[in-house]
Amino acid sequence: MARDPLPLAQALIRCASVTPADDGALAVVEAALRPLGFAVTHLDFDGTPNLFAIRTTPGTNGPHLCFAGHTDVVPPGAGPWTVEPFGGEVRDGILYGRGATDMKGGVAAFIAAIPEASPGTISLLITGDEEGPATGGTVRVLEWMQAQGHIPDMCLVGEPTSKVALGDTIKVGRRGSLNATITVHGTQGHSAYPQRADNPIHRLVRVLATLTATPLDTGSAFFEATSLQVTSVDVGNPATNVIPGSATARLNIRFNDLHSSASLGEHLRGVLAEHAPRHELELSCSGESFLTRPGPFVEALKRAVRAACGREPTLDTGGGTSDARFISRYCPVAELGAVGATMHKADEQTPVAELRALTALYAAVIAETLVLPGSGL
Amino acid sequence: MARDPLPLAQALIRCASVTPADDGALAVVEAALRPLGFAVTHLDFDGTPNLFAIRTTPGTNGPHLCFAGHTDVVPPGAGPWTVEPFGGEVRDGILYGRGATDMKGGVAAFIAAIPEASPGTISLLITGDEEGPATGGTVRVLEWMQAQGHIPDMCLVGEPTSKVALGDTIKVGRRGSLNATITVHGTQGHSAYPQRADNPIHRLVRVLATLTATPLDTGSAFFEATSLQVTSVDVGNPATNVIPGSATARLNIRFNDLHSSASLGEHLRGVLAEHAPRHELELSCSGESFLTRPGPFVEALKRAVRAACGREPTLDTGGGTSDARFISRYCPVAELGAVGATMHKADEQTPVAELRALTALYAAVIAETLVLPGSGL
Repeated sequence: MARDPLPLAQALIRCASVTPADDGALAVVEAALRPLGFAVTHLDFDGTPNLFAIRTTPGTNGPHLCFAGHTDVVPPGAGPWTVEPFGGEVRDGILYGRGATDMKGGVAAFIAAIPEASPGTISLLITGDEEGPATGGTVRVLEWMQAQGHIPDMCLVGEPTSKVALGDTIKVGRRGSLNATITVHGTQGHSAYPQRADNPIHRLVRVLATLTATPLDTGSAFFEATSLQVTSVDVGNPATNVIPGSATARLNIRFNDLHSSASLGEHLRGVLAEHAPRHELELSCSGESFLTRPGPFVEALKRAVRAACGREPTLDTGGGTSDARFISRYCPVAELGAVGATMHKADEQTPVAELRALTALYAAVIAETLVLPGSGL
Repeated sequence: MARDPLPLAQALIRCASVTPADDGALAVVEAALRPLGFAVTHLDFDGTPNLFAIRTTPGTNGPHLCFAGHTDVVPPGAGPWTVEPFGGEVRDGILYGRGATDMKGGVAAFIAAIPEASPGTISLLITGDEEGPATGGTVRVLEWMQAQGHIPDMCLVGEPTSKVALGDTIKVGRRGSLNATITVHGTQGHSAYPQRADNPIHRLVRVLATLTATPLDTGSAFFEATSLQVTSVDVGNPATNVIPGSATARLNIRFNDLHSSASLGEHLRGVLAEHAPRHELELSCSGESFLTRPGPFVEALKRAVRAACGREPTLDTGGGTSDARFISRYCPVAELGAVGATMHKADEQTPVAELRALTALYAAVIAETLVLPGSGL
C-alpha cells in the first residue's frame, strides 16, 4: 500500500538546507503532499521557514494524528565524506547524505506511508529550525495551530530513536536540562592572614560538595536518575599569597520527572543560603522534563512496531533534548524513527531497505492510531 | 653612649637600592663600620651584593652576636608619595623614604648602637637581596660564614617587628609556607551521559572539602593555628554540555611547628589517594617553620626591651617569612625592630625620635647579650 520513499528522500537530501537555509526543501514536501489531498500552509516566523499540512476526512470519527519533523540539517562538517553530502547517492543499497537519518529520511518515509484515504485527521508540522535556536520553529507553529484549532490528539516525532534495529526504542519522554552559574563572594585578603579574609573558594567547595555528595534521586518509573554535573570552576587567581574575592562554578543538571527547573532552583538556593549567603545564581533552562505516560497512543505505537518490525520496543527517556519538549505541552507525544547511528556524522546513511521498512512502520502507526477514540489519549 | 643614627639612615635611604641594585648602600655601611674596628668583607654571589663585618675583642670571653639585615628595598610603587622616595627628607621630626623602617633605619640604628669597645664578638650580615628571590643573599653568606668559622652564638634580625609601640613584639619564630598545585584527572564526556565519564571536578571538590573541613591544628605553645587556603581553582571549560578531563587547584599552607613541608605533603597525598587516585601534585616550600624557644638569648632581649622601652614585649610568630628562616638552621635567632606600619607603602616613614629610641634599644641588646655565656643559648 505504501509508496517508495526513496525518490522523495533523495529529493530532500539534494536541498542544501543547513539551518536556517531551506533551499527548496519545504517545496518538495508540499509537492508530495498536495496530490494526497493536504491543505498546505507555509509559516515564516522571524525568517524561519515552516510548513503545516492537514487532511481531514469528513464524516469519520477518527482522531487527529500529527507527524512532527524537520527538513533542516546540521552542516556536513569537516569529517571525511566519501560521497557528496547533498548528492542523495545510493551505493550498494545504501542511501547517503546529510539528513538521510536525521531526518529527511523520516519525513519521506512518513509521507510515503500516508494512505490515499484514511479516517480522522493527519497533519504534518515540518520546521526548518530544529537543529538551530528553534525560536522561530515548532514553538511558533504550535501557537499558530492552537489559534487555528488544529491541536492534534497525539503527535509522533520522526527523530531517529532506534538504537540498533528499527523500532527497538520509542522515546516517550526526555529529561530536562538546567544550566546554573554560581558566583560566591567572599573577602579578598593575604594568605598569611586568613582571619582578615573570607575565602569564597572554601564556601564554594562546601556548596559543591553538598550538591554532589548524594544523587538527587535514583530514577523514576520511566527515567534514569537525575544527574548533576559541575562542568567548570574558575577563579583565575595567579597569586599564591592572595585569597581571592570571588569564585565561580558552572553546573548542568539533566533532570527527570521528579523535578522541575523551579524545584531545582529552590534546591540550589537552599544549599547556597547555608554555605554561601553572598552569591549570585544564574539559571537557564533549555527544557523541562516531560513524559507521555503509557496509554492508548503508546500502546498503538507498540502494536505498530510489533506488526511492522516483529520486535518488542523499549520505552526510553534518555539522551538530549528534541522538539518533542515543546509539543508535550499540548498533547501526548512520542518519538519513533530510524536507527540514528550516523546522525550528525560524516557519511550519514541509511540502507534503502531500512528506509522502506520505516515507511511500513509509519503506515502501521497510521493504521493503529487513526482507529483510536479521539479523546482520552 | 650611642651615636645619632639619623645621618647614616639618610645616607642609606639616598642610595636607590631597589633589589637587586646596591647603588652604593653597602659602601655606606662599610664606611660606618671600619672606624669602629670591623673587618669588612664584600661577598658577591650570583650578582647579589652582600657584606659581612666582624669585630672580636681579644682576651674577652663574650659570645658572638650577629646582626642580620638588608639594604635592598622594594620599589617605591605607584602610590602617592608626598616626598622623594630616595631623598631621606626629615619633615616635622619624621624621616621619610623607602627603607626608613624596612630596614635601612634598623641597620643605621644598630651600627649607631655599637659601642667603641665591647666584650666578645659583634658581626653584621647585610644582604642586598632580602626582598627579592634571596638565592644569592643570606643563605650563601651563612654558608661562607660556616666555612670561615664565623657562625654566631645568636642572631638578631632587624626587621620592623613592632606593631604599635617600639619593642612591643619580638618575633621568635615564623610559620612555614608551602604551596601546592593539585591537578585531578578524570575522563571527559557529555554532560547528558555522566555514566560514560568521570568528572574530575567532583573528585577535586571532595579533596578540597576534606582538606578544609577541619583545621589542621588549633595552634601550639608559640604559634597560631596552621592555615590552609585554597587560592585558586581552574578548569576553563566553556561548554555546559561537556564534562572536562581535568581540574586544577592551588593551595597555600602557612604551618606551625606541629608540621613540616614533608608531613603536609604526606597529608595531601593521603587525601588525594582516597578521592582522586589519578592526580599530579606539585609542592613548593618557601620556608619551613622555625622557633627559637625561650632561653638566655630571648630573656636578654626581653630585658633590653624593658630597660630601653619600659614595656613588656610579646613573643610572636605571626606574619610572613623573613631571612630568619635561613639563620635558624645555625643558631638561635630572633627579630626585633621598628614599628612596621608603613613598610612597603607610600611615604614610608619613622619618627626621628623613634629611630633614636631603636638605637638605644639595640645598645641595650648589645649590652645584655654580650655578657651571656658563649654556649648553651
